[in-house]
Amino acid sequence: ASVALPVRAEGRTIKWRLASSFPKSLDTIYGGAETLSRRVAELTEGRFEIRVFAGGELVPAFGVLDAVQQNTVECGHTASYYYYGKNKALAIDTTLPFGLNTRQLTAWVMADEGMGLLREMFAEYNILNFPGGSTGAQMGGWYRKEIKSLEDLQGLKIRIPGFGAEIFSRLGAVPQSLPGGEIYPSLERGAIDAAEWTVPYDDEKLGFHKVAKYYYYPGWWETGTHLVFYVNKDQWAALPPSYQAAFEVAANEAHLEMLARYDAKNPPALQRLIAAGAELRRFPDDVLLKAYETAHQVYAEESTRNPTFKRLYDSMMAFQKRADAWWGVGESPMSNFQQAVRRMK
Amino acid sequence: ASVALPVRAEGRTIKWRLASSFPKSLDTIYGGAETLSRRVAELTEGRFEIRVFAGGELVPAFGVLDAVQQNTVECGHTASYYYYGKNKALAIDTTLPFGLNTRQLTAWVMADEGMGLLREMFAEYNILNFPGGSTGAQMGGWYRKEIKSLEDLQGLKIRIPGFGAEIFSRLGAVPQSLPGGEIYPSLERGAIDAAEWTVPYDDEKLGFHKVAKYYYYPGWWETGTHLVFYVNKDQWAALPPSYQAAFEVAANEAHLEMLARYDAKNPPALQRLIAAGAELRRFPDDVLLKAYETAHQVYAEESTRNPTFKRLYDSMMAFQKRADAWWGVGESPMSNFQQAVRRMK
Repeated sequence: ASVALPVRAEGRTIKWRLASSFPKSLDTIYGGAETLSRRVAELTEGRFEIRVFAGGELVPAFGVLDAVQQNTVECGHTASYYYYGKNKALAIDTTLPFGLNTRQLTAWVMADEGMGLLREMFAEYNILNFPGGSTGAQMGGWYRKEIKSLEDLQGLKIRIPGFGAEIFSRLGAVPQSLPGGEIYPSLERGAIDAAEWTVPYDDEKLGFHKVAKYYYYPGWWETGTHLVFYVNKDQWAALPPSYQAAFEVAANEAHLEMLARYDAKNPPALQRLIAAGAELRRFPDDVLLKAYETAHQVYAEESTRNPTFKRLYDSMMAFQKRADAWWGVGESPMSNFQQAVRRMK
Repeated sequence: ASVALPVRAEGRTIKWRLASSFPKSLDTIYGGAETLSRRVAELTEGRFEIRVFAGGELVPAFGVLDAVQQNTVECGHTASYYYYGKNKALAIDTTLPFGLNTRQLTAWVMADEGMGLLREMFAEYNILNFPGGSTGAQMGGWYRKEIKSLEDLQGLKIRIPGFGAEIFSRLGAVPQSLPGGEIYPSLERGAIDAAEWTVPYDDEKLGFHKVAKYYYYPGWWETGTHLVFYVNKDQWAALPPSYQAAFEVAANEAHLEMLARYDAKNPPALQRLIAAGAELRRFPDDVLLKAYETAHQVYAEESTRNPTFKRLYDSMMAFQKRADAWWGVGESPMSNFQQAVRRMK
C-alpha cells in the first residue's frame, strides 16, 4: 500500500566535514567513516553530506578531539585513548589493559551504564560520542628478541602509548612514543627493540615481520579496541531529528561492519605473516601476571585522584566481573573445545 | 551550513506488517523487530511504518517464511532453522552444531561470501534476508539427571529440534519436538528428561531450573544463534531507495543491539539461576567428541544429496578453519587468562 502525501519541511541540505585520525592506507579503520558518510547520504537522499578527510588533511591526526570541540569540523572519527593526556578516563572509551573484550565493551556501552557515563564525560568537551567500530582483541606487537620472562623486559625499548606504556615502564621497560611511519626504520636499525601496532591485517602493511620476527600475543593492553565518532554538540542540536537518527544508526552500522571486516581479514593476514617468517609467541605467565597486578595498581591510584576515571572504571569493572563469569560458561568452553579438537586432527 | 532546497518526490507513505515468530514475553529477541520498526519510522519521518505482530497474531509462529514468500505479510522476523524441514541448508543462516561463533558468523555474512550465498538460497523463496540479531552462544539445556558419559544419553528423552535432534538421536537419545509452552509441564511430570531452550535470560523466564536443576554447557548445537529479517522481494522492489536503505541499516543496528542486550542481561540472569539452585555442568569430553564426529558425518551425508547445503557449508567451513586459527591467537588466550586470574583470586 503506497499513497502520495505532502512532504514534510525538513528537506534541508547540510554539509559536514569529518576529520579522521587515520590514513587511507588503513582501509578497514578509515573505511568506518566512509561507511557512515555513504549511508547517511543514502538515508537522506543526498541532503546530508558528510565529507571525510584523512588524518592530517584538515587537522593533525591527534587533533580531532580539539577540532570537534572547537567547531573547526562538525565531526570526527578517532580513538579516544589518543587524548589520554587530557584525561586518562578517555581511554575507557577505547580499551583498557585487561579490560573488556569487544562484545562486552559494546554491551556495556549500548545496554548497560556505559553510554550514559561516557556522554557525561564527553559533554565537558561539548562533544556527543557514538560507537565507531572495533578491531577486536589486538596483538602484543613485534620483538627483535624473545621475551622468556619478566627479566627480558628490563631496559626493553618498546614503542607503545598510553596505559600500556605506563605499565611496561613499571615492569622495567623503556616505552617510546613514535608515530606509525617511524616505527619500521627505528626497529630496523635497532633504535628500538620492539613495537606494538594493532592486528595482523594492519601490522602486515607496515612490514614489521621483516625486522622483528617474534609476534606476541595476547595484546593484553588492547583487549577489544573501540573507535569513536565525535560530533560537536551545537552542530548536533541544529540537525533535523531524522538526520540525527541517520547519523546515529549509520554509526552503529559502521561499528558492526568494521569488526566484521577485521574478523574476515585478520585470519588470512595472520597466515601470510607466518608464511613470511613471523614467529608466534605467547607472553610468559610471569609477564601476564605482573602486568595484570600492575594495571590494577595503576587504576587504583588513578581512581584516588580522578573522579571521572573512578566513576567510569567502577561501572566497567562491575560489568566485567559479571560478564567474564558468563563468558567462561557461554563462550569460552565452546571456543576452547573447537581449538582443541582442531589441534587433535 | 544549512540551506532550504526543494524536496524530492519520494515522500510516500508506506505501511508494512511484520510477522514475528516470537512472543512479546521474550523481550530481547522480540525487541529486535521493535528496534527496526522504531528506527525506520524515525529515519523516514514516520512515512515508512512497519507494524510488528507477535508470533501467532497474524500467522503461526513457524509460518513466517511462508507468509513472507506468499506476500501475506511484507516482512518477518524469525530464525531460518525453523524451516529446516524445507531445506536443511536454511539452518546455516541461523547456526550449525560446532559452527561459527557469533562474531565469525557475522563476519562470514557481512564481509566474506556468506550474504551472497544466503541470498541465492532465499531467492528461491522470493525473499530478501537481512541480519536480525544474535543471542551469542547458547546453553546446553536442563537435565533432571547428570550426564556423566555417553552412556547417560541412551534413551534420554530430550526436547530439541533440527540438526541438534538428528545428532542426539544418533548418539542414542530420543529427541522430542515440543513447543515452548509444553516444555515445563513435560519436564515436571517426567514425560521428558531434558530440554534445551536458549540462554540464561530467556531460560529463567520459563523456570526450568525448578524441575531439572542440571544446567549444561557448552550448547554445542547453537554456537552463535542468529535471527533474520525476511522481506518479500516484490515489496522490496517497490520501495524508494532511501526506504530500502532505512530498512537495511535498521536491520544491522537491530543485529548489533540484540547481542549487546543479551550480553548485558545474561550475566545477572546466570547469577540468579545459580542462586535459585541451578547446578552448572560441562558436557563430558566423550559426549562432545562423539557429537563433533557425528555432526561432521551428518554434514558430509547432507552435502552429497543437497547442493545448496554443500555450497553454503563448504564456504562456511573454509571460513571457520581460518577464523578459528586466528581466534586461538587473538581472542582465546586473553579470555582464558582473564578467567584463570579471576579463579586464582
